[in-house]
Amino acid sequence: MIRFESDYLEGAVPEIMSRLIETNYEQTAGYGTDPYCRAAREKIKLECDAFDADVHFLVGGTQANLTVIAAALRPHQGVMAAETAHIEAHETGAVEATGHKVITLPTVDGKINAADVRDCVLRHRADESFEHIVQPAMVYISQPTETGTVYSLPELEEMSSVCRELGLLLFVDGARLSCALACEGTPTLRDLARLCDVFYIGGTKHGALFGEAVVIKNAAIKKDFRYIIKQRGGMFAKGRLLGLQFDTLFTDGLYYKIGRREVTQAARLRTAFEAKGIEFAYPAPTNQLFPILSGTQLETLRKKYSFSIQTPLPDGGAVVRFCTSWASKESDIDALIADIKNF
Amino acid sequence: MIRFESDYLEGAVPEIMSRLIETNYEQTAGYGTDPYCRAAREKIKLECDAFDADVHFLVGGTQANLTVIAAALRPHQGVMAAETAHIEAHETGAVEATGHKVITLPTVDGKINAADVRDCVLRHRADESFEHIVQPAMVYISQPTETGTVYSLPELEEMSSVCRELGLLLFVDGARLSCALACEGTPTLRDLARLCDVFYIGGTKHGALFGEAVVIKNAAIKKDFRYIIKQRGGMFAKGRLLGLQFDTLFTDGLYYKIGRREVTQAARLRTAFEAKGIEFAYPAPTNQLFPILSGTQLETLRKKYSFSIQTPLPDGGAVVRFCTSWASKESDIDALIADIKNF
Amino acid sequence: MIRFESDYLEGAVPEIMSRLIETNYEQTAGYGTDPYCRAAREKIKLECDAFDADVHFLVGGTQANLTVIAAALRPHQGVMAAETAHIEAHETGAVEATGHKVITLPTVDGKINAADVRDCVLRHRADESFEHIVQPAMVYISQPTETGTVYSLPELEEMSSVCRELGLLLFVDGARLSCALACEGTPTLRDLARLCDVFYIGGTKHGALFGEAVVIKNAAIKKDFRYIIKQRGGMFAKGRLLGLQFDTLFTDGLYYKIGRREVTQAARLRTAFEAKGIEFAYPAPTNQLFPILSGTQLETLRKKYSFSIQTPLPDGGAVVRFCTSWASKESDIDALIADIKNF
Amino acid sequence: MIRFESDYLEGAVPEIMSRLIETNYEQTAGYGTDPYCRAAREKIKLECDAFDADVHFLVGGTQANLTVIAAALRPHQGVMAAETAHIEAHETGAVEATGHKVITLPTVDGKINAADVRDCVLRHRADESFEHIVQPAMVYISQPTETGTVYSLPELEEMSSVCRELGLLLFVDGARLSCALACEGTPTLRDLARLCDVFYIGGTKHGALFGEAVVIKNAAIKKDFRYIIKQRGGMFAKGRLLGLQFDTLFTDGLYYKIGRREVTQAARLRTAFEAKGIEFAYPAPTNQLFPILSGTQLETLRKKYSFSIQTPLPDGGAVVRFCTSWASKESDIDALIADIKNF
Repeated sequence: MIRFESDYLEGAVPEIMSRLIETNYEQTAGYGTDPYCRAAREKIKLECDAFDADVHFLVGGTQANLTVIAAALRPHQGVMAAETAHIEAHETGAVEATGHKVITLPTVDGKINAADVRDCVLRHRADESFEHIVQPAMVYISQPTETGTVYSLPELEEMSSVCRELGLLLFVDGARLSCALACEGTPTLRDLARLCDVFYIGGTKHGALFGEAVVIKNAAIKKDFRYIIKQRGGMFAKGRLLGLQFDTLFTDGLYYKIGRREVTQAARLRTAFEAKGIEFAYPAPTNQLFPILSGTQLETLRKKYSFSIQTPLPDGGAVVRFCTSWASKESDIDALIADIKNF
Repeated sequence: MIRFESDYLEGAVPEIMSRLIETNYEQTAGYGTDPYCRAAREKIKLECDAFDADVHFLVGGTQANLTVIAAALRPHQGVMAAETAHIEAHETGAVEATGHKVITLPTVDGKINAADVRDCVLRHRADESFEHIVQPAMVYISQPTETGTVYSLPELEEMSSVCRELGLLLFVDGARLSCALACEGTPTLRDLARLCDVFYIGGTKHGALFGEAVVIKNAAIKKDFRYIIKQRGGMFAKGRLLGLQFDTLFTDGLYYKIGRREVTQAARLRTAFEAKGIEFAYPAPTNQLFPILSGTQLETLRKKYSFSIQTPLPDGGAVVRFCTSWASKESDIDALIADIKNF
Repeated sequence: MIRFESDYLEGAVPEIMSRLIETNYEQTAGYGTDPYCRAAREKIKLECDAFDADVHFLVGGTQANLTVIAAALRPHQGVMAAETAHIEAHETGAVEATGHKVITLPTVDGKINAADVRDCVLRHRADESFEHIVQPAMVYISQPTETGTVYSLPELEEMSSVCRELGLLLFVDGARLSCALACEGTPTLRDLARLCDVFYIGGTKHGALFGEAVVIKNAAIKKDFRYIIKQRGGMFAKGRLLGLQFDTLFTDGLYYKIGRREVTQAARLRTAFEAKGIEFAYPAPTNQLFPILSGTQLETLRKKYSFSIQTPLPDGGAVVRFCTSWASKESDIDALIADIKNF
Repeated sequence: MIRFESDYLEGAVPEIMSRLIETNYEQTAGYGTDPYCRAAREKIKLECDAFDADVHFLVGGTQANLTVIAAALRPHQGVMAAETAHIEAHETGAVEATGHKVITLPTVDGKINAADVRDCVLRHRADESFEHIVQPAMVYISQPTETGTVYSLPELEEMSSVCRELGLLLFVDGARLSCALACEGTPTLRDLARLCDVFYIGGTKHGALFGEAVVIKNAAIKKDFRYIIKQRGGMFAKGRLLGLQFDTLFTDGLYYKIGRREVTQAARLRTAFEAKGIEFAYPAPTNQLFPILSGTQLETLRKKYSFSIQTPLPDGGAVVRFCTSWASKESDIDALIADIKNF
């Protein structure tokens, strides 16, 4: 079975594994205060051109989301997000468990737009019962989104501008950020640091064993953030494992290379599907593809490949998801393309 | 200014006021352990034909909602409700502040239906990522709804049946229950006690100074409920004030009379609006009317009456809300009808 | 049975009951936006010489405590309090249910002192693992305390001074404040407004049916406080009932008179106990007395009086509590004194 | 600098590192559903003689504590623990952030005893205001404790017996369990599985890169536990990394060997301190030593060794902590012993 159902099926890039072995017997202080974390922080700040940023390393995405939101909001405030957003749909109410409402905005492709954010906030402010309604105070977006789509630089600039005008915090979940960075016309790390209050750079899905690097620009969120990490169970004892992984990913542009490779391989698959007239549920230029397969096509591919079913369709077909990862083998991509051609 | 914007503008029915005065110097134990609370509980259980029920008196509706939900659910469980439900839209995230997600279901008239509940639950159970999604565990409905509509007895029976089949709790918010009881074809208190796990009988909007009587049938919710009341700030020191009010409301059918009067007065207003061809946003047979007024009509009525703007319309008109209350004067109703006739 | 077990056994002072009757049919806007609330706020601000304060009316003490603390603290912050404090010992974890730890300080008489607060904070700041420990950020004291003792003006000034020096919030629970105001050498309302960030003036135990007036001086706590009230279930629909009660209590010095009367009656009882050589568990000058009675004395008094057992003693005696209230009758006090004399 | 300040300064045992490398390119399903997790679960259940147990792998100890407690308790329930317990003193209020109070019991050496648990519960049940007090529902102990002491088998049996008699849950935090297992007269894994409702086997401090294996015996805690893991941010994407580590630790008795080695090395240090007449703050037979050093001794050792200061003493000395770990070198132990001899 060749697996394409997600991008966290394998371990880590060899550069990381070597360094884990090399440093295994070193003794370092715990909880992210070691030299590897310091070095990784400096490299990320340099890459973001944000020397005033705080950088914290967390183990996973849900943990990063709930920790940032708990740190940033007062109890009566909520976070606006697409109705398909990870925090709304796939974190078992982790945000609500910190006491905060997710205020959903409509979406067709996983993205939300600045105009809808503005409407939501202005409607709240104009309502005579505004104190009886959760106060929208933060915008959460994913880059790329759950459905593999990306925000262009102008789109992010507009969102940021609306947020600043209305006094909202802007938070970007970058669990698969490397892939978005590899797309044309998308914001760079510098753009993200310039336009957001807080965002994170995903490692788990881009070549690390695990780890997300949270970059905080907003002073109010920075304050006492490590207390919140500890309180939410995210203070990792052997913190250097996180630092060392991000230090490696931000050495010699490795993080960018991983995303480019994932995107390139996905593009090859996309072309193969398109050549057979297969349509996609979302216009996703990153490492996730959502082709709409017929029942027969599903049956054929299931024999050799694993992939996830996103939405079963009444005709026996389904919207499915194929992911490429840092470890996808060219030969596996070739095999899948060949089988698509034979549809 | 004659006020129709809500049904909590005045104090309490004279029967209650007299008894407050009469009993003012009596000494009774606190926290709901006094003879008036005991008497009120017995009357309510009798009326519900539910001698195994527990009855608790709380001060207000949001408090009742958050206390019941906190008592009933485990952390990963959520409550299904209409997207217009009070707990979703008008409690500043009180439910989320207890850690629970409100899972919204679509609605056109404020009601949800059993088929949508079933779909929501079955979709969750069939999802391969079900553990990553809040578990739907309770159904919350209001009788009548926020938009004044009511569930018929067959509708509630169907909802109850789906809940029991799927192992869901059924919770009915009866903040304006007296009005629903006054409508034809609706569930009685006995029906509610038979079909629900927990519901409450609203006093604040039906002639009491304040107070909601929570009736619990489900043994798991009953257990230690008073601890939860105290923890959520709802343990009322001079509890007899609550008991005494409900004892009065459930003497000589007063609670039913109040609802019938409110509904009758609202019906007179409805007829007057209809006679002028004015449409309503919702088919509401209770004490809340939602006529769609033109800008001119709004201007005319604003001079003498207060009412609330529910939704401003692009043409300068609005969906507005008129409420009758236990204290609405016939002469005020007459005056408003006369002014409607002159449109 | 003559009851002395608490000070919330009766209804409200006649001045309040009359006004409830007089205003019963008036129509006013809900949720504390009515003229009675406005008038009460102005009177309280005048009395506190604090025109920049915000005043909110809540129904009960636990509700006031949890709402203030939830509004004031970030998630990783805790509130320091005596190990006997109401929030620690008698609110079923209401503060923890908002996510915050109560950090206990030792006490012998219900009070905590500024030196212990300073030590607690400095110890936290000096600890190399400080981020792994809840950050002490607020001081909670009761005036008077659970055991009836009071802070003198110099004691409160010293506490306030330590709080300001260390950047801590100072919160005073005044559920029985009227009695503390009636004692010599205690802070006045003006002192409280000058020295605290937030405090409340208790009505429930001083002649109101219910109600606590929260006075906020600190701008950060003021912000959006009404949202927090609503979220925690404390937004009272017929808010004017609260305003009207506090307006009455702050007319013609009624609030002060009630406390003075309660304290004077308690003093008569204290003298009677002392005349028989009976000792007290705490040096309490307010309306709560904690005599240490023998088993025989307990038996004798139990025949005619109710009072609460605070701590049973191994010899069959107990520390008990007698409370006077606004409604205590002189004849009942006389009867009890006579029975004490006959010990 | 030779480091002894904690037992999480190094990476992982070579057996684990080899397997990480070997399996790096394998593709496995995520979230703990892979074959390595299955194998590790089976080995642990075999070792515990508990085939009905559920075993879950979490990344860290605070995460394990808060997840178990959130899963097990209803909102009004609290967990009893020593005043020095990790959940009370070193988790930044993680338990309170889930809404639950930690009810502290006195301790002299980090342990609590069954009699104090019983007293606490019976006092609660006998209190007439019991509903106003957090309900004690769970006992949390660490084996070994924060101060390195251990519960003997009879002590744990007595605790378990009291818990079962009173209907309390018993939860054992085994972050350093391997060391306790290496001590004489302590409970085995089988004993723990027989006597507790839930406990965990610590990997982070015993040779793993990270990871704690939570073993659940109680059916109510088992139910839907994976939802709670996800909600609290603990669902690890590449779950096999956890399974693989525990599979390795439970192959050929490696987990036991690690603890025995740590304890043996600590014993050599203990003997060296004792030979110089140095006393210990706690009678700790495990891998943590708490000698009371003079200022001069501190100065001498600081030049070559790092260790943590637990409590500074007025005379310039301090209670300090030395830890041995799986990776402590014999030569480093020898060096330290030589320097102690030269005091």
